[in-house]
Formats: sequence, structure tokens, C-alpha cells
Amino acid sequence: MTAYDTLQNRFRRLHALNEAAGVLHWDMSTMMPSGGAQARTEQLAVLSVTSHELLVDPQMRDLFEAAEQESGLQQDTWRQANLREMRRRWRHATALDADLVEATMKACKSCEMIWREARPKGDFAAVLPALGEVLKLSREAATAKAEVFDCSMYDALLDQYEPGGSSETIDDIFDDLAEFLPHLLSDVLDWQSQKPEPLALEGPFPLDAQEALAREMMQAVGFNFEHGRLDVSLHPFCGGVPDDVRITTRYDSDDFMKALMGVLHETGHALYERGLPQDWRLQPVGEARGMAVHESQSLLIEMQACRSAEFMAFAAPLARQAFGTEGAAWTPENLLAVYNQVKPDFIRVDADEVTYPAHVILRYRLEKALIEDEMPLAELPEAWNEGLGELLGITPPDDSLGCLQDIHWFDGAWGYFPTYTLGAMAAAQLFAAAKAAEPDIPADIAKGDFSRLMAWLGTNVHAKGSLLTTDELLEQATGKSLDVEIFKGYLANRYLN
Amino acid sequence: MTAYDTLQNRFRRLHALNEAAGVLHWDMSTMMPSGGAQARTEQLAVLSVTSHELLVDPQMRDLFEAAEQESGLQQDTWRQANLREMRRRWRHATALDADLVEATMKACKSCEMIWREARPKGDFAAVLPALGEVLKLSREAATAKAEVFDCSMYDALLDQYEPGGSSETIDDIFDDLAEFLPHLLSDVLDWQSQKPEPLALEGPFPLDAQEALAREMMQAVGFNFEHGRLDVSLHPFCGGVPDDVRITTRYDSDDFMKALMGVLHETGHALYERGLPQDWRLQPVGEARGMAVHESQSLLIEMQACRSAEFMAFAAPLARQAFGTEGAAWTPENLLAVYNQVKPDFIRVDADEVTYPAHVILRYRLEKALIEDEMPLAELPEAWNEGLGELLGITPPDDSLGCLQDIHWFDGAWGYFPTYTLGAMAAAQLFAAAKAAEPDIPADIAKGDFSRLMAWLGTNVHAKGSLLTTDELLEQATGKSLDVEIFKGYLANRYLN
Repeated sequence: MTAYDTLQNRFRRLHALNEAAGVLHWDMSTMMPSGGAQARTEQLAVLSVTSHELLVDPQMRDLFEAAEQESGLQQDTWRQANLREMRRRWRHATALDADLVEATMKACKSCEMIWREARPKGDFAAVLPALGEVLKLSREAATAKAEVFDCSMYDALLDQYEPGGSSETIDDIFDDLAEFLPHLLSDVLDWQSQKPEPLALEGPFPLDAQEALAREMMQAVGFNFEHGRLDVSLHPFCGGVPDDVRITTRYDSDDFMKALMGVLHETGHALYERGLPQDWRLQPVGEARGMAVHESQSLLIEMQACRSAEFMAFAAPLARQAFGTEGAAWTPENLLAVYNQVKPDFIRVDADEVTYPAHVILRYRLEKALIEDEMPLAELPEAWNEGLGELLGITPPDDSLGCLQDIHWFDGAWGYFPTYTLGAMAAAQLFAAAKAAEPDIPADIAKGDFSRLMAWLGTNVHAKGSLLTTDELLEQATGKSLDVEIFKGYLANRYLN
Repeated sequence: MTAYDTLQNRFRRLHALNEAAGVLHWDMSTMMPSGGAQARTEQLAVLSVTSHELLVDPQMRDLFEAAEQESGLQQDTWRQANLREMRRRWRHATALDADLVEATMKACKSCEMIWREARPKGDFAAVLPALGEVLKLSREAATAKAEVFDCSMYDALLDQYEPGGSSETIDDIFDDLAEFLPHLLSDVLDWQSQKPEPLALEGPFPLDAQEALAREMMQAVGFNFEHGRLDVSLHPFCGGVPDDVRITTRYDSDDFMKALMGVLHETGHALYERGLPQDWRLQPVGEARGMAVHESQSLLIEMQACRSAEFMAFAAPLARQAFGTEGAAWTPENLLAVYNQVKPDFIRVDADEVTYPAHVILRYRLEKALIEDEMPLAELPEAWNEGLGELLGITPPDDSLGCLQDIHWFDGAWGYFPTYTLGAMAAAQLFAAAKAAEPDIPADIAKGDFSRLMAWLGTNVHAKGSLLTTDELLEQATGKSLDVEIFKGYLANRYLN
């Protein structure tokens, strides 16, 4: 057996263990009774340690060195890319010593628990020491990884979520957006105020009718229930494995749009997973490219394809039928108006498409400053409020609506935030390219037929797995790398029309 | 760290991996869409290989030897028993070389597939070669394990399911029963024919009403839904882990008794798991004692406690309410008569309490003869039909109702069958002892109060884990080892009264 084949076998096992953990996580969020928590924590910890030990096995270095020398590999782009992705995972795993990993896990767990108490009270001071510990350990990890990857501390963390991502590029993009968005927002609010208020949709909307409608929409988009499930969880997510991809939602009896749009979002994630290259299941190169591309697929379905006049023409009659209702509020035009409303607010997860990037830019700038040690952590609340004021013109009344709102930092996920907006931009760019290549896509969507769109995404995005870098993928699919002008044009066009 | 502590850590990890596999199995039977099968097979195979490698690690022998010498262990009965159970698992795992394990897995998988085709056609000849291969490999395993455990080939296989079980003892018990049961059956059929036919229960019984009733009964028996679930699967089972124990059933809209009694049976298994010693979670000594004791707990609840006049007095009004029905068929007396009917039939899983042991004795005698090479496999159908005629006075019209009906042998589970009847006997013996110790148990059950019974079982069976051998457990709980006279007396008393 060649060194490369040995590596493939090891990563196959590693991946299957991670898949097992994924199913256990899904079960924990959807099925597990509360009394199962302790046993589950232990099962997941053992799977995680077992995977980690496989990855940092001292033989791995020799295997990588031998594989690099093996003939034929340079000519085989998939194997070559697989080796690159294996090595990236291995370098991330070996960069940190076991003590730091364990200390970080404990600090995050403890900080997250304190945060859960502190958030509703808006008590940043209460969580400051614990968050300080998490930040300190995250900076240690960043230092270690920066050395291994020969990059900045922030970029070393970003690479965990967005392989090859660069804060230099992000700075340029986000500075441009931060300049543009406040003007756009002001114009959109002006323009919106001149239109009649959309008519309210009167509930309650029975949960079983919401679920049936959601399933109908999922199938229209292309979700195959022989290869996946829809369930309920407190925080919606897309889990499972590519051939058994499991999405969740949460229903609100007063607002069916929330769950429906959430389901369409997760369906976008799910179809990406489903469409990953069949020949490379259980190998690193067969995985999704990164968080930005993943988010581009969910936002392409939710924001680009389904928050459109065409989709509403298809969906409105089905929604009327599902809830046995009718009237002026249920026209496609009114439904579209209802859920394209723009309104600056304090909470990221409730934000609309125009204000969402401001939330992300703020967090990105702050986390970068904290990781690069350019700002004391104690100043975070003040810097947050100031930044939000500049970007959205509003100031949180307290930290529960400010810097305490998201779990990410308190759970040690530094370097994640920018992928949300990079994904939104990529979604706009990919959807424009898809329509340019297949001009019938909008008319198809008006008929509830997503097959042409999904075929284009399948070929140009899903089936690529991690063969290409994110930049290469976008260049091959759309003719250019991530372009801020496309996103700006898209927002202006949608929200000023 | 002592060698013993190192072993405990290793077995803790091993157990957590097995628990993870258990959750994946549960999910596969209840939640997984068909398209997830291939990925799931891979996940389970990797978990299995990973566990096996941990167990057969060459360091284990030294650890066991060192642990045996460590001071203090002899005085600590739980740790001593834990070490004994660790060693038993390790000896089973190391007895077989990897090639035999792999060949057996493949042969079983292939044989099971052929059997699925052959069974409905009653085509024993079609599966004979594949079954021959499975038997050959099972005999090889039996030979290897017999050497390690210094026992007969059959006992080496039996030990996998019933630790310390002995075919010499089973021969004595089963010969006695085989002598007694045909007479009892004839008497019961006579006696039954002199009574009026029970009134039929007219369906259909809506599945949601059946489920609600099943949940009510589970809670009455003591099932805590914060530590478990009830779901649907094709083949009912009890899975999950002790603090998150998951039972399944299958509803038949024409016959609510089937699912209800099935649920009570699985609840007995579940409460055993739940009651295992809390201090020994994830250690071998904290596991259930074996299949016979496990089956004793399910049959104690289903057959001893719930197939009784007392339970029917409690259950009849709830059943009437659940299905919104009444009438003479729904009296406790008639319900009891309906589900205590005795009738010889070809299929084991549908058999009543009086004829069930005959099915088990037949299979035990045949599998022992085959493993000990005392009968050619080709003669199995003839020997089966002859044996069933002797024990039950009926002859299967074809092999689909005969030797092809059960999956066990075709899937490589040789040595399992006797545990069903050993469990039924232990159930009768334990229930008699419980009532002797706590005479109010029957009156409690008539009120739907199982707490006194469960407390007795908790102390005398559940909390013992694998501290004692099955014999010791029965002796301590009931004052004697497994006693065939108690079972005979119980059957005669219940079915001739």
C-alpha cells in the first residue's frame, strides 16, 4: 500500500468517527431526553479524543513526507487536493499541545455557563474574567497556529472556518461595505417609508400545517426525504451526513415565515452536503469547501432564490391552502413586502439582508482587535456600542442587546463571524452567474421548479467539494473572485425597487 | 496510576464507544432514512474496529497481570468483579484472530441476505451452503474459545450471552421441561376447551390512542421519560444507554394487546438498564448480568406482573377510556382470558407462555448438536419437524414456518436461544420471591402502583450489575439457584385455574 493510500484509510476512519459524532450531536438536539446529557457528553468526548489521537499519531509526519514523493500524485488533481486538505487538518491538530486543547475546552465550557447567566442580565462584568481566560487561550492557539501556517494570528484562526481566508482581503471588502451600507440603509428607509405598510399576516398558524408546507417547499427545492429528515430543535441547524442530511427548525405559531425561511436556509446547506462529490465520501477533499461557501448555499436558496417575486408567486397559493386562508394580505406582492422589510435592530440573528453585514463587520473588527491585542477586553461593550452607532445609527440600551448576544466568543469561536457576510456576497455572485448561464431560472422558480438552478450549483459548487480554494471556485463558477460591487448592486437593486 | 485504574480508563473509553454505536443502532432502526444505510454501516464498522483494537492491545495482558497483584483489590468485591468481567471480555476478543472475525462477519452478512430471500419461499436448500459456511466459522470460533475458557464448544458460545452458563445444567432443566410440557399442554387445552370462548376485542384501535395508553402504562410501571423514549421500529427492542434508555414497538390497528404487551416487555428491559449501579456506569461490572437475567426482567413485567388478574383490574378501565369503548368484552376477566389463550403454533415469536419453551428447547438441542458436530446440517429441516412434533404435536407444512423462521443462526448467533427460557424461569422465581418478601405487591399492581415491586427488583437484581454470577444472584435474591419446579408450578397454577 502506498503512503497516500494509508493516509486515505486513516482519514476514512477519522471521518467515520466524526460522522458518528455528528449523528450523536443531531440526536442530542432533537431526540435525547434531558437525562441522557451526561452519558452523551462522555460519548462525544471519547469520540473527540479518539479522532484527535488518530490525527496526531507520530507516524503521520512520515506518511505525509512519503506521500509527497510518490509518483503520479502530482498529475492527479483530486488526490493532490486531498493530500493538501489532509495536511491542513493535521497541521491544525498538531499545532496545539494537548494541555492547551484541554484548558481551552474547560475554559469555554465554564465561560459559556457564566455567559448564559450574564446575558439576560446584561452583566458583562460578570463574564469578563471567564471571557478573558478564553481569549487568552485563543490567543495562545492563534500564536501557535500562526507559526505553523506562517500567517497573522487572526488569519490562523480564520483558517479553521475559511481555509485560506485572509483578513487583508476581508478588511478591503468590509471597509468598502462599511462606507456604502449606511447610505444605502438611509435610502432604503426613505424609500420604504414612501410605500404603503405591508398588510399583517394574521395567525395563529397551526404547527402541523407549517410543517407540511415546509416539507412541500423542501421537496420543491430538491430535498429528498430518502436521504434526510426535518425535525425540531431549539436552534435550527443542518447536521447528519451527506447521504442522510438532517435539518431542523423551530415553529412559531404567530409567524410562519420565520420557520419557513429558516427551513429554506437549512435546505440550501443540506443540498450542498448532498451534492458533495460521491467518489470522495469520507475524504477531506470530499467535504464542503468552508463556512463561506456553505453559507453562500443556504443564503442563495433563502435570500436569492426564495425571497423573490418569482418564488412568492409559487409559494403564496400553497401558503393560502396550507392555512386555509385568503385575502389581500396573502397576495404574492404583500408576502414579498412583508418579508423584505428593512429595519435596523440590535440583534444579529433577527437582522434583514441590508443591516446584517453591519453586525458582522462590527464583530469582525472587534474580534480582530482583541486577538491581535489592539484593544483591552474591558473596553468591548463601549467599542461595540460605538461601532453599532456608526454602522446602523442605533445604540443598544444594555449589553444583553449588545456584546453579550452571540455565543461565539464565549464558546471560543474566534474567527468565524466574517464567513456570514462573505457567504452572503458569494450567494449574490453565484446566483447572478447561474441566471446568466441559465436565463430561465427565475421563470422556473415561479413554477416551483428548482431543477435547473440546482443542476448549475451541483456542477459549479457542490460537486467540487474541497478540490479548489474558495477563490478558485468563485473564479471558475462566476468568472471573478469575490466582488463587492456585485453585492452592493444586488442590495441596491432589490431594496430600492 | 495503578494498573487497575489504567484498565478502568481503557474500559471506560471502550464502553463509551460501544454506547455511541448503540445510539447509532437505535437511530438506524427508528429515525434513519433508507439513503443513510451505507454511511451508517461504515460508521458502525469503524466504531467496532476501534473498540476491538482497544481491547486486543498487546499491553492489556501485562495490565491484567499487574492488576491481579495489586494490593487491596482482593478485598474490594466490586473492583474484583470488575476485573473479572474485563478479563472475560478481553479473553473473548483475543481468542479469535482478526481473519476469522472478518470472515465470520462477511459470511453472516452474505448468509443473512440469502436467508431473507429463502425464508418466504421455504427454500432451505438455497441457504444451506451459506449457512454451512457460517456454521463452519462459528465452530472454529467455538473451538478457539473453548480452549481459552477450558469448556465445551457450545458452552464457549453460550458464555458470550450467558456468562458462566453451562449446557450440562441446561440439559437437565430442558429434559425435565420437555417431559413435563406436553402433558401440561394437553391438560391446558382440555381445560380451556371447557371454558366459554373469550369475547373478541373489536378494532380498529387508532395508533395514537394505543401510543398514549402505552405511555401511561410505562409510567405506571416506573419508566421515566426524562431518561428514555418510546418510538416505533419494525422489530421492537430496548436500546440506548442506562440513563437514556430507548424502547420501541410496532402498532397493529387490529390488535392493541400486541403492542401494549410488547411495550411492557421492553419496559422491563429498560428498567433493568436504568437501575444498573450508578457508581459503575461505563464499567463492565456496571453492565447487565447477561441475557437470561435481562430476559427475566422483561418477562417478569410482561408475563408475571402484567398478564395477571390484578393488572387487568387496573388496565381495563384505562383501555376502555383510551379507545372510547365499553361492553362485556372489556371486563378485566375477559381481557385476561383473551391474552392468556394457549395454542400450539409454528412461530416462536407468536407463541404463548406454555408453548414457548418447546420452541426454545427444540432450537437449543439442534444448535448444540450442530456445534458439537453430532448432526449433519442438511438434516436440520427433518430434525426440526420431528422435534416440534414431539414437543408440540404439530408439524410445519414448510421450512418457512420451520427452521427458516428465526434470524439467529443465519446471522451467526449460536448459543443465544436457551437464554429465553432460562429468563422465563428466572422471572417466575424472582416474582415469587418478591411477593413472598412483599406480600402487598399484587394489591399494589391492581392499583397501578409498581413501586414496591420495582424497589425489590432494584435492590435484588438491577443494582447488582455484574457483581454476581447469575446463579449467585438468584441464590441471594430467591434463596435457591434456578429451580425448574418453580416454573412448572407457576405454569400449572396460571393455566389450569
